Amino acid sequence: MPDIKILTEAELRALVSLDADAVDCIEQGFTTLAGGNVVMPPIMSLPVREHNGEVCVKTAYVPGIDSFAVKMSPGFFDNPKLGLPSTSGLLVLFSSTTGMLEALLLDNGYLTDVRTAAAGAVSARHLAREDATSVCIIGAGVQAKLQLKALTLVREVKSAVIWARDAAKAEATAAELRQDLGLEVTASTDAASAVSSADIVVTTTPSDTPLVMAEWLQPGQLIIAMGSDQEHKIELHPECLSKATLYVPDSQSQCAIKGELRSAIEASLISGEQKFAELGDITAGKAVGRQEDHDIIIADLTGTGVQDTAIATLARQRAEAAGSGATFTS
Amino acid sequence: MPDIKILTEAELRALVSLDADAVDCIEQGFTTLAGGNVVMPPIMSLPVREHNGEVCVKTAYVPGIDSFAVKMSPGFFDNPKLGLPSTSGLLVLFSSTTGMLEALLLDNGYLTDVRTAAAGAVSARHLAREDATSVCIIGAGVQAKLQLKALTLVREVKSAVIWARDAAKAEATAAELRQDLGLEVTASTDAASAVSSADIVVTTTPSDTPLVMAEWLQPGQLIIAMGSDQEHKIELHPECLSKATLYVPDSQSQCAIKGELRSAIEASLISGEQKFAELGDITAGKAVGRQEDHDIIIADLTGTGVQDTAIATLARQRAEAAGSGATFTS
Repeated sequence: MPDIKILTEAELRALVSLDADAVDCIEQGFTTLAGGNVVMPPIMSLPVREHNGEVCVKTAYVPGIDSFAVKMSPGFFDNPKLGLPSTSGLLVLFSSTTGMLEALLLDNGYLTDVRTAAAGAVSARHLAREDATSVCIIGAGVQAKLQLKALTLVREVKSAVIWARDAAKAEATAAELRQDLGLEVTASTDAASAVSSADIVVTTTPSDTPLVMAEWLQPGQLIIAMGSDQEHKIELHPECLSKATLYVPDSQSQCAIKGELRSAIEASLISGEQKFAELGDITAGKAVGRQEDHDIIIADLTGTGVQDTAIATLARQRAEAAGSGATFTS
Repeated sequence: MPDIKILTEAELRALVSLDADAVDCIEQGFTTLAGGNVVMPPIMSLPVREHNGEVCVKTAYVPGIDSFAVKMSPGFFDNPKLGLPSTSGLLVLFSSTTGMLEALLLDNGYLTDVRTAAAGAVSARHLAREDATSVCIIGAGVQAKLQLKALTLVREVKSAVIWARDAAKAEATAAELRQDLGLEVTASTDAASAVSSADIVVTTTPSDTPLVMAEWLQPGQLIIAMGSDQEHKIELHPECLSKATLYVPDSQSQCAIKGELRSAIEASLISGEQKFAELGDITAGKAVGRQEDHDIIIADLTGTGVQDTAIATLARQRAEAAGSGATFTS
């Protein structure tokens, strides 16, 4: 049997960063998705209600990429009481031609963090105004930080404001980001004005009630809703979608079940039949993104198996070039 | 992060055999499945048509078992041309309470072979006549051999006949089984008489056309159809299901899509609405299996995530007791 490469989180952090290469890698994944020959089955979801947990499994076969990943993402939300992180998991990489196991990426969710933030940057690159400089981040967790960093890779961000339910956490995150990114980052306790004043708004929470109201949205904004990835989550009031000039899902079939689109369909604000151009159609040049400076655009990101296959393949290629990781046979 | 145990195929073969313990472990899994609190999502399936391949992902959370497995089973059917096996794969074991990665079982499909054969033994234990002694195996591959071995664990098998499309392969498999099991095993080129003469018939092929006809079935038989696990496969002519006194799926929802039940529903011989007792209902004593010696019973086995979680947990427990495997942290 062929050799198996095993890479630890520390090795993967050394090999893959949230940088321009990661953004390009994820953008290429979306573009390929729009090519139509990607095979991406519906997300497998295993709820473990007794322990307040859930595992999601994602995968995608992308023609032209030598490997495909199967990603397992557990989220067990009582873990912090035990001193363990809520989210963890790994990616497994198989050969696209033989199905043989090629690599075990024991990333504890790190590569998911990177590919998720990179999708925010891809959205902003294609959908934000060229002159966007101000950002509002809703939420104060890992993605709040990474999404802001990702935006700095594609736009000349000058300032950001953080709003979170926990004001102390918003302050701490703002302070950390000021330090790390050298930007003017402040915390706000007024979500409405925080949202209204920004060129780009990114929602990064696991909320199950709307946090952003339609009347807060302003002409010219891009709203990236990346928090909702499950059937019960919602960050944008459904009327936001009616108010938007353009709505762009990462995968319409997923967003209709797990994204902001779900609530808008349930509220009968959008027909379940309506077909939207996806992010990959726009990165591929098959559909038009922003047409006017005053357009309000919503990107709905639920996270796709294509991103996992793309980032895992990048990590494996870099590991081979660098000679990182342990080799195993079985 | 907690330690991760890595076990190779050779270590797993040393730890877990197709024996009475394995059969009991799988039977316990089915019994728990009938308890109603198991969470078993639909099988995830990733077809890779360009390379004549497919990957199936199965999982199940079983209350009372400390871990749950996610199993990835690639089948790439051009591999033999490259000197590689068609099927491979691995099981990943997570903690049921925290979702943390606990073990990587790099079994290349070995544990799947064991748990699949063990389910045949569980079916025979509960559904075959007590005095069953003769077996017919349709097919001559790995499961042909393992299913016959599994039957010897639960019935006093005295003779077996092997039929396969490739008569030479049937001869070779019969010779190997004579040697290994010390039974009277012969090959036959007459499928009808091979089937009609046996107390227990096991179909083990990936056929997409029926191999067993209803008129061949005899009173008192148990037919275990374990080959069909995909939408296009079929081993029993649909009329076999109408002729049977009792039809027992491992999981009715799976069998209606991937098992023999699919074709019988499509042929309108069985209503899609009809509800059958599953194998676990019978092992749990919630439903009755064989009632009369002359009953014709069909067991339809598509393979369940519960079996994977059960066998992976057994392997991990034995590895811990034996101190086998490598330990990794990430």
